[in-house]
Amino acid sequence: MSTASDQRTIAILNGPNLNLLGTRQPEIYGSESLDDIDRMCRKHAESLGFSTRFQQTNSEGELVSMVQDARACSAVLINAAGYTHTSVALLDALLTVEAPVIEVHLSSPHTRESFRHKSVIAPACNGVIAGFGSLSYRLGLDAAVALVDANGVNA
Amino acid sequence: MSTASDQRTIAILNGPNLNLLGTRQPEIYGSESLDDIDRMCRKHAESLGFSTRFQQTNSEGELVSMVQDARACSAVLINAAGYTHTSVALLDALLTVEAPVIEVHLSSPHTRESFRHKSVIAPACNGVIAGFGSLSYRLGLDAAVALVDANGVNA
Amino acid sequence: MSTASDQRTIAILNGPNLNLLGTRQPEIYGSESLDDIDRMCRKHAESLGFSTRFQQTNSEGELVSMVQDARACSAVLINAAGYTHTSVALLDALLTVEAPVIEVHLSSPHTRESFRHKSVIAPACNGVIAGFGSLSYRLGLDAAVALVDANGVNA
Amino acid sequence: MSTASDQRTIAILNGPNLNLLGTRQPEIYGSESLDDIDRMCRKHAESLGFSTRFQQTNSEGELVSMVQDARACSAVLINAAGYTHTSVALLDALLTVEAPVIEVHLSSPHTRESFRHKSVIAPACNGVIAGFGSLSYRLGLDAAVALVDANGVNA
Amino acid sequence: MSTASDQRTIAILNGPNLNLLGTRQPEIYGSESLDDIDRMCRKHAESLGFSTRFQQTNSEGELVSMVQDARACSAVLINAAGYTHTSVALLDALLTVEAPVIEVHLSSPHTRESFRHKSVIAPACNGVIAGFGSLSYRLGLDAAVALVDANGVNA
Amino acid sequence: MSTASDQRTIAILNGPNLNLLGTRQPEIYGSESLDDIDRMCRKHAESLGFSTRFQQTNSEGELVSMVQDARACSAVLINAAGYTHTSVALLDALLTVEAPVIEVHLSSPHTRESFRHKSVIAPACNGVIAGFGSLSYRLGLDAAVALVDANGVNA
Amino acid sequence: MSTASDQRTIAILNGPNLNLLGTRQPEIYGSESLDDIDRMCRKHAESLGFSTRFQQTNSEGELVSMVQDARACSAVLINAAGYTHTSVALLDALLTVEAPVIEVHLSSPHTRESFRHKSVIAPACNGVIAGFGSLSYRLGLDAAVALVDANGVNA
Amino acid sequence: MSTASDQRTIAILNGPNLNLLGTRQPEIYGSESLDDIDRMCRKHAESLGFSTRFQQTNSEGELVSMVQDARACSAVLINAAGYTHTSVALLDALLTVEAPVIEVHLSSPHTRESFRHKSVIAPACNGVIAGFGSLSYRLGLDAAVALVDANGVNA
Amino acid sequence: MSTASDQRTIAILNGPNLNLLGTRQPEIYGSESLDDIDRMCRKHAESLGFSTRFQQTNSEGELVSMVQDARACSAVLINAAGYTHTSVALLDALLTVEAPVIEVHLSSPHTRESFRHKSVIAPACNGVIAGFGSLSYRLGLDAAVALVDANGVNA
Amino acid sequence: MSTASDQRTIAILNGPNLNLLGTRQPEIYGSESLDDIDRMCRKHAESLGFSTRFQQTNSEGELVSMVQDARACSAVLINAAGYTHTSVALLDALLTVEAPVIEVHLSSPHTRESFRHKSVIAPACNGVIAGFGSLSYRLGLDAAVALVDANGVNA
Amino acid sequence: MSTASDQRTIAILNGPNLNLLGTRQPEIYGSESLDDIDRMCRKHAESLGFSTRFQQTNSEGELVSMVQDARACSAVLINAAGYTHTSVALLDALLTVEAPVIEVHLSSPHTRESFRHKSVIAPACNGVIAGFGSLSYRLGLDAAVALVDANGVNA
Amino acid sequence: MSTASDQRTIAILNGPNLNLLGTRQPEIYGSESLDDIDRMCRKHAESLGFSTRFQQTNSEGELVSMVQDARACSAVLINAAGYTHTSVALLDALLTVEAPVIEVHLSSPHTRESFRHKSVIAPACNGVIAGFGSLSYRLGLDAAVALVDANGVNA
Repeated sequence: MSTASDQRTIAILNGPNLNLLGTRQPEIYGSESLDDIDRMCRKHAESLGFSTRFQQTNSEGELVSMVQDARACSAVLINAAGYTHTSVALLDALLTVEAPVIEVHLSSPHTRESFRHKSVIAPACNGVIAGFGSLSYRLGLDAAVALVDANGVNA
Repeated sequence: MSTASDQRTIAILNGPNLNLLGTRQPEIYGSESLDDIDRMCRKHAESLGFSTRFQQTNSEGELVSMVQDARACSAVLINAAGYTHTSVALLDALLTVEAPVIEVHLSSPHTRESFRHKSVIAPACNGVIAGFGSLSYRLGLDAAVALVDANGVNA
Repeated sequence: MSTASDQRTIAILNGPNLNLLGTRQPEIYGSESLDDIDRMCRKHAESLGFSTRFQQTNSEGELVSMVQDARACSAVLINAAGYTHTSVALLDALLTVEAPVIEVHLSSPHTRESFRHKSVIAPACNGVIAGFGSLSYRLGLDAAVALVDANGVNA
Repeated sequence: MSTASDQRTIAILNGPNLNLLGTRQPEIYGSESLDDIDRMCRKHAESLGFSTRFQQTNSEGELVSMVQDARACSAVLINAAGYTHTSVALLDALLTVEAPVIEVHLSSPHTRESFRHKSVIAPACNGVIAGFGSLSYRLGLDAAVALVDANGVNA
Repeated sequence: MSTASDQRTIAILNGPNLNLLGTRQPEIYGSESLDDIDRMCRKHAESLGFSTRFQQTNSEGELVSMVQDARACSAVLINAAGYTHTSVALLDALLTVEAPVIEVHLSSPHTRESFRHKSVIAPACNGVIAGFGSLSYRLGLDAAVALVDANGVNA
Repeated sequence: MSTASDQRTIAILNGPNLNLLGTRQPEIYGSESLDDIDRMCRKHAESLGFSTRFQQTNSEGELVSMVQDARACSAVLINAAGYTHTSVALLDALLTVEAPVIEVHLSSPHTRESFRHKSVIAPACNGVIAGFGSLSYRLGLDAAVALVDANGVNA
Repeated sequence: MSTASDQRTIAILNGPNLNLLGTRQPEIYGSESLDDIDRMCRKHAESLGFSTRFQQTNSEGELVSMVQDARACSAVLINAAGYTHTSVALLDALLTVEAPVIEVHLSSPHTRESFRHKSVIAPACNGVIAGFGSLSYRLGLDAAVALVDANGVNA
Repeated sequence: MSTASDQRTIAILNGPNLNLLGTRQPEIYGSESLDDIDRMCRKHAESLGFSTRFQQTNSEGELVSMVQDARACSAVLINAAGYTHTSVALLDALLTVEAPVIEVHLSSPHTRESFRHKSVIAPACNGVIAGFGSLSYRLGLDAAVALVDANGVNA
Repeated sequence: MSTASDQRTIAILNGPNLNLLGTRQPEIYGSESLDDIDRMCRKHAESLGFSTRFQQTNSEGELVSMVQDARACSAVLINAAGYTHTSVALLDALLTVEAPVIEVHLSSPHTRESFRHKSVIAPACNGVIAGFGSLSYRLGLDAAVALVDANGVNA
Repeated sequence: MSTASDQRTIAILNGPNLNLLGTRQPEIYGSESLDDIDRMCRKHAESLGFSTRFQQTNSEGELVSMVQDARACSAVLINAAGYTHTSVALLDALLTVEAPVIEVHLSSPHTRESFRHKSVIAPACNGVIAGFGSLSYRLGLDAAVALVDANGVNA
Repeated sequence: MSTASDQRTIAILNGPNLNLLGTRQPEIYGSESLDDIDRMCRKHAESLGFSTRFQQTNSEGELVSMVQDARACSAVLINAAGYTHTSVALLDALLTVEAPVIEVHLSSPHTRESFRHKSVIAPACNGVIAGFGSLSYRLGLDAAVALVDANGVNA
Repeated sequence: MSTASDQRTIAILNGPNLNLLGTRQPEIYGSESLDDIDRMCRKHAESLGFSTRFQQTNSEGELVSMVQDARACSAVLINAAGYTHTSVALLDALLTVEAPVIEVHLSSPHTRESFRHKSVIAPACNGVIAGFGSLSYRLGLDAAVALVDANGVNA
């Protein structure tokens, strides 16, 4: 599955309900749609010399498969949404990724219900950026590129 | 996805293993199959002036998508079965539904194992009806129609 | 205590503070008084061929005694209010009732403080209906009658 | 779904990330791929007079469906990987299987993180074999055949 | 409230639902009624040179008052039933009793649900006798008399 | 129930076992009887221009009713004793009181057993005064009057 | 191991440190030695038509073996002392005893440290008698004889 | 450190962030500044025949030292703010104070986040007054003076 | 203690109450005695080119010593029964064994009481086989031999 | 304390032990000293049109005071180190800051001991950036500037 | 059991697996054998004017008996190894010792698994010395002699 | 900060409230003042060829700084008093010390309140000595010197 086209590509993987972004609860999540974020990320990544692979799914199993497919990419940004707090399967998939993995969230989980305070996938991630809306993705790309440059791998 | 045909439609969404209903453990779940319940619900809803959209899936992600697709319906009845107790993703999907949401269960979770006592999705539901076999669905339809009439929306 | 007049009678038992209904916090509990609910229940039960015995008390001990006195009734609806979450004595009383027992609540306990999520009395109840205001009582009567008809006892 | 061809067949069901076996972390999971294990199982089962149905999926819902489809088999071996610790839906599916069910793991969960010490599905399994790499599968087949012979059913 | 007639009197106080004894669940609680136990206790106490004051109530507050009234008795036997596990008020009342207090139970709480394993009132009791049906009361009387004789008070 | 005579009246409600005050354990609770406290409160309140309604009960249900009856008073002082730590019904009653509610205790619960550290009713009270013997009541009256004056209601 | 001489014999088994009885902490355990209790029990049992087998050990394994050897006796009294709270092996041994088993304690565990509140062995015992010093043994013999007579077995 | 000038002096010690009082969140803490409270306390204490030593610090260690320095005072009022819930060092300092110690809070901790419900320092305090804004301090002074008069020490 | 005769020997160590096997509760543990299992193991091991050292004890300390003595054996099978869940001493002994250690159980602990779900000794074992009756031992021998062959040590 | 010079200034506050950065454990924290980070931040902020106020302290109380002093700044970056997990006082200080607050960490707390997984101060922060070494600070500045621009305040 | 020869004797009691010392895991426990420690202790004690009684056992019951036998000694050093964390029986035995008792450990339990952080026996010990290898024993002897000299008993 | 004068110096650091030693609660802490302990330590260290740096502070932050300053010393003895149980910042400081670190306490924390049983700083210490009054310091010096000699560093 890993191909040459994965080089200098950053996978940006989005979990359940993020497809509704912008159409619902803009007071919490902002008015940008997931397409807006996709476009912003693509443009910002290009300015840094990378392309993006932007995907969304409501299915835990598909998200696991997307992570597996992203193993040849230069880095992985993942907003696992509701699966952040429950999915050991996702943790296991991320543990097989050698490239940098960055956990991003639109809002800060610590300001919401207590079951959102625990991240099951955090041990498999280099770092986390949360609470800045779509800016979390942009900062995540910056972090990813910095880590890729520092590692000098897969780029 | 929301269409005119969603008006005066009540989505009835069924989670994992409910497709086996009637063929297994009738002493617990009764001898009715899920098809029997589908037919009963359709007939009862019609008598109340509503049509139904009756779906079942074993997949958490598909159930999340079904909830998203049901957002234009007049109301949602959901028997999330095993995902009731574990799925934050399903809770998040239900939180985006503005129409009345009613949690139904065939048996009473409190008379079973302790991990079935906690409903992760309850905070997103208007109410719960549990323990009456297929009657739980029928009562759920009655409740849904009453809530729709009270709200005067989407009907 | 059980008499002939208990036949085809459904006991509807109400716990502490429900006597204040309608005069306080209508945004939570609606504007109906407990008398309104009594009248609605009596009328609805009559249309189903049953009479009702509608009682309220602030005392745990009296509620236990009311449950004992209701043992000859066709069914018991109980809204134990604050005792729902703490009363082992009430659980023990309900465990001696052979007729169907249905737990009802005006609001959904899961959307309130966490100490309201646990029902001590649930193991003694056939089912639960919660979150629909006074409609919870009406649906509870429907459920009770269906269970009585299915059992063919005490009716 | 159950057919004559399910007779004397043992379903061997594999959960998320097991498709990566052999290509990653061989110091933990050994150098055998899942295909190697499939071949070994098929050969060993044949020597015992059984055929195998060997499946893998990253999706919880598909794993639930695979379990349902395996209900007509002589026995079920399941390595649910990450879903072992979280899936009530999988537990419910396995509870509907009357044939022997055997939980297998390549490594010993008790020597890993504490959240891997709890098996949600264990109550639905006849037994567990864990910690022996691919040998866990081979021993699981031996156990399955012994249980089938003892039961004298579906074989 | 304490009078001369309390001398050489043993109060035997019974909590909620014990009035139903003998008419319900004889396989658990035996076929003796509370009246039978009253008679047995009176007769046995008389043979030991004591009279009895035998009371039952479903009300926590009345049970607290009965304990207060029993403070002038020679000893107190208490089967607090459901209030055993929840009533701090009862504990506080028993803490004001200087005469021997003995906790009795018909069945052994440890063989029932886990919330029955904890006795809130035990710290205020000299000892506990549980699991022997009505014999628990008889043994309790023997213990009470022995403690009274040892103390040489109020007798 | 609320009458003109409730104006400029402060209800002082006392829970289980407080009727024994002064006759038992003076080293803990002091030698004043509840009547002494009643007299002291009446006198002190009069000097502040208020009358008092001083009540005691061992019954949780009666205490709930007393709270309901006090809703037309200018303020409520409550020493719920053992029910402080267990009574959701009492919390619910207090939540319906709009006048200032002040929780008082003779001794400091935090210096006693750990189950006395939690106050179930605190969320319904404006403030708490504990640990000063009968002085807690006097300070509570001062606080009540100050709050009434600040609110300018019911006085 | 079971012999004719076990008929009408009651095994009285004592756990760790009980051999020190009477020589230490008489303010807690009384001044009687274990030999005194042995003599008292033998005499009391003889008056009831039974002989006793009185044993003590500091070893968990020996206590398990003593329980196994006592399986042919008419009844078993056990004061497991420190092993009461920790020994699953002792529980398993007691579960194999068909004759009545009675748990006795000199002092009341609930008035001591919290780790003494839990009895691991209680589920294997018919009843418990605690808190009455050596009288606990005497009452235990009375209970044992009553249970033996009721069962009509092994006597 | 203790000097003659400490006689008939009440130390009023204030913890972290209380220096911001009045300038922030007046809807919670009122519009009075800490200087206002200082002035009110000094004036009220003088009317009772005492002087005050009013101090504030953001530092846990300085607050510990302030408590040590206050050991010669007639009484100590302490509003430890955020250190109330975490500081064992402060508890230890307060345990060395023989004069009366009174815990005061502007707002009621029980109506805020659950980590504010536990007071680490309560076991070292005679009593607590919480929830009355600056009135808590005034009532605390009244309580302090009453305790000093009762003790007849250091005054 | 380790001798030449330990080479190609597999120690099979059995904990408390297993000596009763076959004579009690055959519906749970089967009708085979421990001698039957000893014979079956010896025969099966011989067919694999190994001898066995089969031991049982009710004593935790003796089981620890047996483990120490088995350190020169080719492998250790251990059914620690009740000590599985409580013995840190046994864990420590097993941690000193370099040869393969396999935990076996007749029944599946996860289908029994919750305190049997935790294995204290699991971290010191290569793997676990549970739930297959005496077949667990036979599969354990197969696993042991495979591990010995893979290690090429002590054989 | 707030002055004109606070405008367009970003406070960067560092907690205990960060002064040792670069001289210890470079494999964890990198080889940069805190001075290096100060310089990098100043330079990067200047390129964005902001100045910085960079401070470090080992004292919880001083960190609280620093936060108070930073309330007039455009934004606050805080790496509270060990106080992140324990300081309610710091949380309370941060809650008084109206400007954006960003929590930064050099390493990812979730990959360290479990007591580092909980951030006490998170509820007072807009977002968190963790795990990227000194890059966390740089990304934090980017986030701060974006939030300031979005708010249009204090800049 | 206590004899004149116990005077000026220090009992040094060692629990399970300590007999393996020096032959296993020297990187953790050092290369000294238990005999080496015995010799070192004897020599060091003699230089302080005491003799030693040095014992080891793998059995909890024997360790309890050794403690009982040591009650006439001048002091007790105990390294209970695995029983430190589980044995209530050992705690009870140590509670009967009036001479100084000192808990020693070779390694520091707090740097190992969390279940080793709790010492069940600590409440019966004067002090603890842990983490210094065999030096812990030597320091323990110094402490024992100092305590004996301070007490002036049994020496 | 580290200087030549740190060589063969042992830092002895004391936390909050230890400055009060000898003047308060001599029945718990003995009658020695901290100055007495300082003198005893200096003298004993000199006899071992070391000098001491003896410091006390009530401030957590200062204690952190003292630990940092002590990093060039030969060893560190620390009695963190109340900060032992709460300070992650102190743990982090101690983790940067390469020289031996020894935790000392005057009294045994396990015989006091349960919140004193947990040592947050223990994972950063080589060993612990507790319960021997000022002797704990003397033994700590002996241990420190032994560890320094064994390491052959910084001396």
